[in-house]
Amino acid sequence: MLHAAAGAFTLKPEMERVAADIDHLFDQALRPACHSNRLCDAMRYAAMGGGKRMRPLLVLASASLFGVSRGEALRAGLAVEAIHVHSLIHDDLPCMDDDDLRRGKPSVHCAFDEATAVLAGDALMALAFETLADARTHNDPGVRADLIARLAAAAGPSGMAGGQMLDLLADHQRVESADIVRIQILKTGALIGWCLDAGAVMGRAAPVLARRLATYANCLGLAFQIADDLLDAEGDEAKIGKRVGKDAGQGKASFVSLFGIAGARRRADHLVAKAIRQLQGFGRDADLLRAIARYAIARDR
Amino acid sequence: MLHAAAGAFTLKPEMERVAADIDHLFDQALRPACHSNRLCDAMRYAAMGGGKRMRPLLVLASASLFGVSRGEALRAGLAVEAIHVHSLIHDDLPCMDDDDLRRGKPSVHCAFDEATAVLAGDALMALAFETLADARTHNDPGVRADLIARLAAAAGPSGMAGGQMLDLLADHQRVESADIVRIQILKTGALIGWCLDAGAVMGRAAPVLARRLATYANCLGLAFQIADDLLDAEGDEAKIGKRVGKDAGQGKASFVSLFGIAGARRRADHLVAKAIRQLQGFGRDADLLRAIARYAIARDR
Repeated sequence: MLHAAAGAFTLKPEMERVAADIDHLFDQALRPACHSNRLCDAMRYAAMGGGKRMRPLLVLASASLFGVSRGEALRAGLAVEAIHVHSLIHDDLPCMDDDDLRRGKPSVHCAFDEATAVLAGDALMALAFETLADARTHNDPGVRADLIARLAAAAGPSGMAGGQMLDLLADHQRVESADIVRIQILKTGALIGWCLDAGAVMGRAAPVLARRLATYANCLGLAFQIADDLLDAEGDEAKIGKRVGKDAGQGKASFVSLFGIAGARRRADHLVAKAIRQLQGFGRDADLLRAIARYAIARDR
Repeated sequence: MLHAAAGAFTLKPEMERVAADIDHLFDQALRPACHSNRLCDAMRYAAMGGGKRMRPLLVLASASLFGVSRGEALRAGLAVEAIHVHSLIHDDLPCMDDDDLRRGKPSVHCAFDEATAVLAGDALMALAFETLADARTHNDPGVRADLIARLAAAAGPSGMAGGQMLDLLADHQRVESADIVRIQILKTGALIGWCLDAGAVMGRAAPVLARRLATYANCLGLAFQIADDLLDAEGDEAKIGKRVGKDAGQGKASFVSLFGIAGARRRADHLVAKAIRQLQGFGRDADLLRAIARYAIARDR
């Protein structure tokens, strides 16, 4: 328990440091060579000054296990955050989830317009791959190509885009526990899996260690989603920065509607314990990953 | 003139061969590991069985100058065609150009729905980068990373997405000749430039030769756009496979509205001649590029 408290204690400053670093990198990436101010304005509006930057933090936490430099890990973190923001912009569109609030401010299509939101999302995906292809991300181009292939797979029809498609099709349909787990694994799990993978790839980790981190990622992704559903059912809009009670209002299946609040919380606790068990053998180096796993179910925003 | 006729003669079978090869590669790429049938259906619907495959043809024509294998060039061609189809799907959306007809059939958002169209476009962009990251595209990962960085730049705010943003902003505004050239160079020129570049990068061409191909690409891209504007003003909807007379109907500036039909045609002729001049020194190896340049202003679809 002392250990848990210590983990929680170190998490917040590291989160804030990573968030500041990612903002700085977005600022650098989105400043030069913008031929269209409106498009860059929309990209900056969506990408900067918001979000927990959980994915870059996961890349850093994984990379630090294998001696990867912070600068390289941050650039990989920038790439995955760019893909994440891309997906948020497109998911918020009226034809998708139709959300008008994101990270505590109007969604991109509300602050700008739908066409600008589509293009800003597209351009952020391009930025992600441009970032990974750059030699500053890793000096070995083989490692960079590997990171790119894995991120593209995680974003495509067998990953994030496929999961969002299933999620849209599941609206107003009878959805069972196995379906919602599968949708989550595709929709958000694939990208979280990439974050842990990225550290292992950049650090040339032994396959057995990479596999343990992949299991950690699977458990963490599901725990996060369950916690999101709990927040949506119970949470405070002002703290979360997006609309709450939406899933229930639309009659949409969630971990809470399937298992109830107590059942969903029990499952999340179990997943976090399983995630932390994967870290045995990494020693204190993995304290950041342990703290993130605990945070998944402890956060109120 | 005999030379020109010979060029025109060889172009059609090569175009058909490339189109068949690209269809085959899309089929292979979009068959496995599709967790969501609807998303893959939409990607296949948009990507297969249509279009002139002009961009893959340009990659092949450039690559053949430097001894790159046809198989490698086709994979790079698949990547740029995936990005091109991605942009067509998103550009056709109601919030963008609002086109209901594309390549002779209903646009993706009409045949499916808007959400599916957004996701299919996103997933095709991911497929493009996944294809380039694969070792089958080039055995040197440094070359692959270079291709990826250049394609991402060509698709982003300083390329295609930036051009489309400017094009949308230019609607109903007074647009001058310099603006419309700039919009075209970004919106379609950047991707055409990548095609010629790709052959040079894969074949490790001398910088002086790569620069000549870049000039060829600039001229060709503009000539194609002018020819498109001429077709829009004069063309036959059934042959082109998309709506015509739309630009004039919307009071949108085009090369035809700025220079008139005769002036636009004169400019296109001049650009094609300039493009072909860049190929001096490449000998008969560049006949395919010469034929493509002539085709740009001779086609009726």
